[in-house]
Amino acid sequence: MLIRVINPNTTASMTAAIGRAASLLSGPGVTVEAVTPGSGPASIESHYDEALAVPGVLDEIIAGDAAGADGYVIACFGDPGLLAARELARGPVVGIAEAAMRTATYLGRSFSVVTTLAQTIGRAKDLALQFGVADACAGYHAIDVAVLRLESDPTTYRRLLDGCRTALETDGSDVVVLGCAGFAPLAPNLGDDLGVPVVDGVTAGVAAVRGLIDLGMTTSRALEFAPPPAKTYTGDLARFTR
Amino acid sequence: MLIRVINPNTTASMTAAIGRAASLLSGPGVTVEAVTPGSGPASIESHYDEALAVPGVLDEIIAGDAAGADGYVIACFGDPGLLAARELARGPVVGIAEAAMRTATYLGRSFSVVTTLAQTIGRAKDLALQFGVADACAGYHAIDVAVLRLESDPTTYRRLLDGCRTALETDGSDVVVLGCAGFAPLAPNLGDDLGVPVVDGVTAGVAAVRGLIDLGMTTSRALEFAPPPAKTYTGDLARFTR
Amino acid sequence: MLIRVINPNTTASMTAAIGRAASLLSGPGVTVEAVTPGSGPASIESHYDEALAVPGVLDEIIAGDAAGADGYVIACFGDPGLLAARELARGPVVGIAEAAMRTATYLGRSFSVVTTLAQTIGRAKDLALQFGVADACAGYHAIDVAVLRLESDPTTYRRLLDGCRTALETDGSDVVVLGCAGFAPLAPNLGDDLGVPVVDGVTAGVAAVRGLIDLGMTTSRALEFAPPPAKTYTGDLARFTR
Amino acid sequence: MLIRVINPNTTASMTAAIGRAASLLSGPGVTVEAVTPGSGPASIESHYDEALAVPGVLDEIIAGDAAGADGYVIACFGDPGLLAARELARGPVVGIAEAAMRTATYLGRSFSVVTTLAQTIGRAKDLALQFGVADACAGYHAIDVAVLRLESDPTTYRRLLDGCRTALETDGSDVVVLGCAGFAPLAPNLGDDLGVPVVDGVTAGVAAVRGLIDLGMTTSRALEFAPPPAKTYTGDLARFTR
Amino acid sequence: MLIRVINPNTTASMTAAIGRAASLLSGPGVTVEAVTPGSGPASIESHYDEALAVPGVLDEIIAGDAAGADGYVIACFGDPGLLAARELARGPVVGIAEAAMRTATYLGRSFSVVTTLAQTIGRAKDLALQFGVADACAGYHAIDVAVLRLESDPTTYRRLLDGCRTALETDGSDVVVLGCAGFAPLAPNLGDDLGVPVVDGVTAGVAAVRGLIDLGMTTSRALEFAPPPAKTYTGDLARFTR
Amino acid sequence: MLIRVINPNTTASMTAAIGRAASLLSGPGVTVEAVTPGSGPASIESHYDEALAVPGVLDEIIAGDAAGADGYVIACFGDPGLLAARELARGPVVGIAEAAMRTATYLGRSFSVVTTLAQTIGRAKDLALQFGVADACAGYHAIDVAVLRLESDPTTYRRLLDGCRTALETDGSDVVVLGCAGFAPLAPNLGDDLGVPVVDGVTAGVAAVRGLIDLGMTTSRALEFAPPPAKTYTGDLARFTR
Repeated sequence: MLIRVINPNTTASMTAAIGRAASLLSGPGVTVEAVTPGSGPASIESHYDEALAVPGVLDEIIAGDAAGADGYVIACFGDPGLLAARELARGPVVGIAEAAMRTATYLGRSFSVVTTLAQTIGRAKDLALQFGVADACAGYHAIDVAVLRLESDPTTYRRLLDGCRTALETDGSDVVVLGCAGFAPLAPNLGDDLGVPVVDGVTAGVAAVRGLIDLGMTTSRALEFAPPPAKTYTGDLARFTR
Repeated sequence: MLIRVINPNTTASMTAAIGRAASLLSGPGVTVEAVTPGSGPASIESHYDEALAVPGVLDEIIAGDAAGADGYVIACFGDPGLLAARELARGPVVGIAEAAMRTATYLGRSFSVVTTLAQTIGRAKDLALQFGVADACAGYHAIDVAVLRLESDPTTYRRLLDGCRTALETDGSDVVVLGCAGFAPLAPNLGDDLGVPVVDGVTAGVAAVRGLIDLGMTTSRALEFAPPPAKTYTGDLARFTR
Repeated sequence: MLIRVINPNTTASMTAAIGRAASLLSGPGVTVEAVTPGSGPASIESHYDEALAVPGVLDEIIAGDAAGADGYVIACFGDPGLLAARELARGPVVGIAEAAMRTATYLGRSFSVVTTLAQTIGRAKDLALQFGVADACAGYHAIDVAVLRLESDPTTYRRLLDGCRTALETDGSDVVVLGCAGFAPLAPNLGDDLGVPVVDGVTAGVAAVRGLIDLGMTTSRALEFAPPPAKTYTGDLARFTR
Repeated sequence: MLIRVINPNTTASMTAAIGRAASLLSGPGVTVEAVTPGSGPASIESHYDEALAVPGVLDEIIAGDAAGADGYVIACFGDPGLLAARELARGPVVGIAEAAMRTATYLGRSFSVVTTLAQTIGRAKDLALQFGVADACAGYHAIDVAVLRLESDPTTYRRLLDGCRTALETDGSDVVVLGCAGFAPLAPNLGDDLGVPVVDGVTAGVAAVRGLIDLGMTTSRALEFAPPPAKTYTGDLARFTR
Repeated sequence: MLIRVINPNTTASMTAAIGRAASLLSGPGVTVEAVTPGSGPASIESHYDEALAVPGVLDEIIAGDAAGADGYVIACFGDPGLLAARELARGPVVGIAEAAMRTATYLGRSFSVVTTLAQTIGRAKDLALQFGVADACAGYHAIDVAVLRLESDPTTYRRLLDGCRTALETDGSDVVVLGCAGFAPLAPNLGDDLGVPVVDGVTAGVAAVRGLIDLGMTTSRALEFAPPPAKTYTGDLARFTR
Repeated sequence: MLIRVINPNTTASMTAAIGRAASLLSGPGVTVEAVTPGSGPASIESHYDEALAVPGVLDEIIAGDAAGADGYVIACFGDPGLLAARELARGPVVGIAEAAMRTATYLGRSFSVVTTLAQTIGRAKDLALQFGVADACAGYHAIDVAVLRLESDPTTYRRLLDGCRTALETDGSDVVVLGCAGFAPLAPNLGDDLGVPVVDGVTAGVAAVRGLIDLGMTTSRALEFAPPPAKTYTGDLARFTR
């Protein structure tokens, strides 16, 4: 099976890091590829970025279906374009916020979300509510590192580790959910250092999609997620005409 | 004051109809203008359309701020780009789903949403949940008329009237919320024929924004709705670089 | 249009202050008058006061309808008699807790209520739940100043400002809702000093009622808010016989 | 112990019927007395009636405390004045809606409320929400008999029985809650005829108050339910000055 | 009437203490007996203990029905086997978590649960959710004393008193709910020392069951709580074959 | 990896059928074994059966850990003993209700649960609430076939198909969740005949556990799910002493 992991931002080095993390689940019969959209923001740190990342994500769904992808992971913690992608894609689509938060519910009483910038917490709350996991989320915490500095900043790991410790203690939670795809490479070490499950949505998302594909399941076409009606698009979005 | 009503789809005749309805609130000191984006879908009937309408909406926010707009109404019942627009705009921004549903809560025990196509109901449910009015919404109903046929189809009014009657009876509700900007011109007659309040989000949205402007209030800049961080955009979205 | 703002307590100087604040929204075609009931408590600081303020509020609704009022604001943060007033009044009726909390939801992620005495917080919680905004309210805070001392106590503004700062920081909220009609005159300065929206229910309530009147809307008469059935009243409430 | 059951309306024959039903729980050491206020509505069938019943209820609390009452039941399904009464009374105070709905939760999965007039259902919903039992209530049903006709109308029992059957079947519930104190005398026969628990709030309320008194417990005085602050009352409510 | 209080653990001295506390409600016509199961854990401090206490509890229900018991209290704060016992028993069955939390809702705005070990808090949360009182519970606190050391440890009372004080202050609550049957003997002194209602589930449970019996009510047999279908049991549970 | 699927009832033919369904996910590196407890009910159709199945489930967890199992699925839709098993087992444990309901949330707007007997619906509701998916579940339906007759009754498939169709139409849902492990073999055909995703918890549970094992994750040991404290057990449960 072919699973396409879409990095909704346009920073190729971040796509590469996401791809390396995602490859944990690849193996005989399971190919995982990470891709970068041709348009959109360099990183996603606001509702504005989130919304404007969607056309690029949908481009990659269309291209993926043409390339025979069996399922998709949208690898930004705001799950940009998730529901639109579900209408469009032949196979199942999972967002990493969705996958991380749902996976965490198998592992403990409640989880804390630890993310990059405080400005993104509102989006995480909206998603938790929409996914029905708001009660399981004990708190949201930011470490105040910009997404594109995560790799280069030598203090990232230490700040993230401290942020997780503070979150667990403040919230009385027993699981950590990482609130940014850029944290994916750090998850295993964090789990070891913290002694609690640390869920990264990229790997959790690939595991979820792989499971759905193996179960032979995809998005229901019965009602809301039927294919989008034929429609004329104008301007620089004209390529989305169906 | 200048209130800009943004029709998120690209059909100019619909913008004109919305503008006529919205002019109910214009008067001395209050100018209401309706605008059409330069890119996007001809109508919005799926998550796909909803998501791809956002760049055009944000273009109109940017243009509106440059033109001195004091506040905005996003005139599609899916409120596309609402939170991104709030980060961006100098003045307050209100979506018509938000305005209609909140306004309805002043008028009765519970309301029924009556919309065009069943495929759009999921989006309305997500918004009701996000706005905290899910418990006040007694049901969602579709009349199965496509958005662009609303004006030309001679049966539209009758089907909408019947749909409202069915909704009120099925749901035991006492207020109707119209689930499409294209219904705006029909609201007054519907109210007369049904004998209950019929809330159209276009006019309710203009009233809400006018009130906020008169109160001297706009979106909080303290946390989540601070201006979006500077960011490089690539591809055909490069104009959104900040 | 004529909007009647009812101060549910019997302290005329407070009515005058409320009237001055409410006049922000008066102008050509919009007359706002503040009135004091003929019976009831000097101020409202308990469920007991809240409940016993209702007959006076309803007297003012009856008198207002006779005088041609087009809509009403009930200017105590406990919204005493709101639902009864809706059954009775010809035009729309809005409570200031309702208006302030709903208005705040247009302006940020979550709001903090800052009020006079801790004993009144329970009522605010009940209202937030009833209005569907409980999840948007991040916290309730009291500054421990009695209602009738607000004007005379020289420390009121400072304590209120400090209370708002503490609330915003403790709750992680981005909007303040003032929990007493007596705070109305202080709202503009507070907004300037805090740098976040500070919503006063008196002005927000007048804006909401004005909007409903301009939309031609009033309470649904279909079910729950039909006029009260004819009924004999005895004792000193005999005047309420219908 | 002395338990005072307050009929919030002023119809003495209804007080007598309530008293007979309540006497089920009287016995050695337990005296139950039913009282009628000196002012208020002849029956309670709207928010207007509900609100205007409160002064009479509070009069009876004050008189009851003077007469040595150990606890109170407020015997109207709208629980008028419940929270104010709790501030005021020395002993515990229970409303019959509260008692009936809480008692029902010990007896099955979910209950249906069957009441007199549809106009009162909104109040029942607000109370269910406030008491935390909204999810346990499967539905609300009215039999369309006015309160004061319950005793004289020969079809009352049959209509109530039919209403309960319809409610149980429509809602898939396994317990009935009677939504009017006037139904109290009919509860035992209804239970026999329906074969499910039929909870009447008058008897359930007396049982609840008796239990609290035997446990030596009354309303917490720590915060919200501290005695009402001293306050001047004017007009025909001047007797409530404290 | 005969009320059987079942201590779900097998420690007889704890049963005796529970029985002494429960006898507060015994008197003319009311016999309260406390019993110990023949199998199960010495104390209950985990989901594992909770689950494995159930066969012993059900043994005591079967024996109690044979002995003519009119109702039951399950005296562990995890309410082990409550729903199964309801299917089985002829009379009403109440758990002490259920009874304590519901009773607390009559007495104040919100309550704090104070229990023995932090590991048991998750179970209390699940029960609060299931009983519809999650919103009324302001917090959960553990004093870190093992159940079987409660009686022997001379610091128990002091730690519990301190734990309650911390809980009330941290949570802003006005009622305490004791989270372990072993705390029952300490409740009266705690109430005196704290000045707020302190609800012990053992006595609250007996009061609740007594009330239901006096009302002539037991679990609905209509749907979910019909008697368990006939079934073959194997292994050392063969005695449960019906 | 070794995944142990525990059939909580003692009917070996049902274990065999569950094992055949579960083998869909077995393959290179993944061994799935289905086991039957040595004690317990022949089938599970009540709270009584559910509770008494737990000791047998825990026996199989203990045996599985000794045999090197890497993770567990509890294959009854009541998820008996799930939280206790999580405390006990070295690897992750998933219940089939939990897995089916969470998996369904990836596939559509809302799901309908279709189960065997109406008496089991209450348990499903409690689980949906506990797992945070109550809002995503649009309805619960029973086909009135006893668990042990599922295989032998020639009408089972037809009744189940009809039940699913009724559920989808009544509930307006777009996904089916099968509410009994005994339905597992029928899921693929049902999905084909209905044209919507039909989620069977046995296979969904194996997929979920496989994912967690591949992610290197197991239950958090930090707080609630720490290993159960050492404890003496008496009677025929003495083997559970730790």
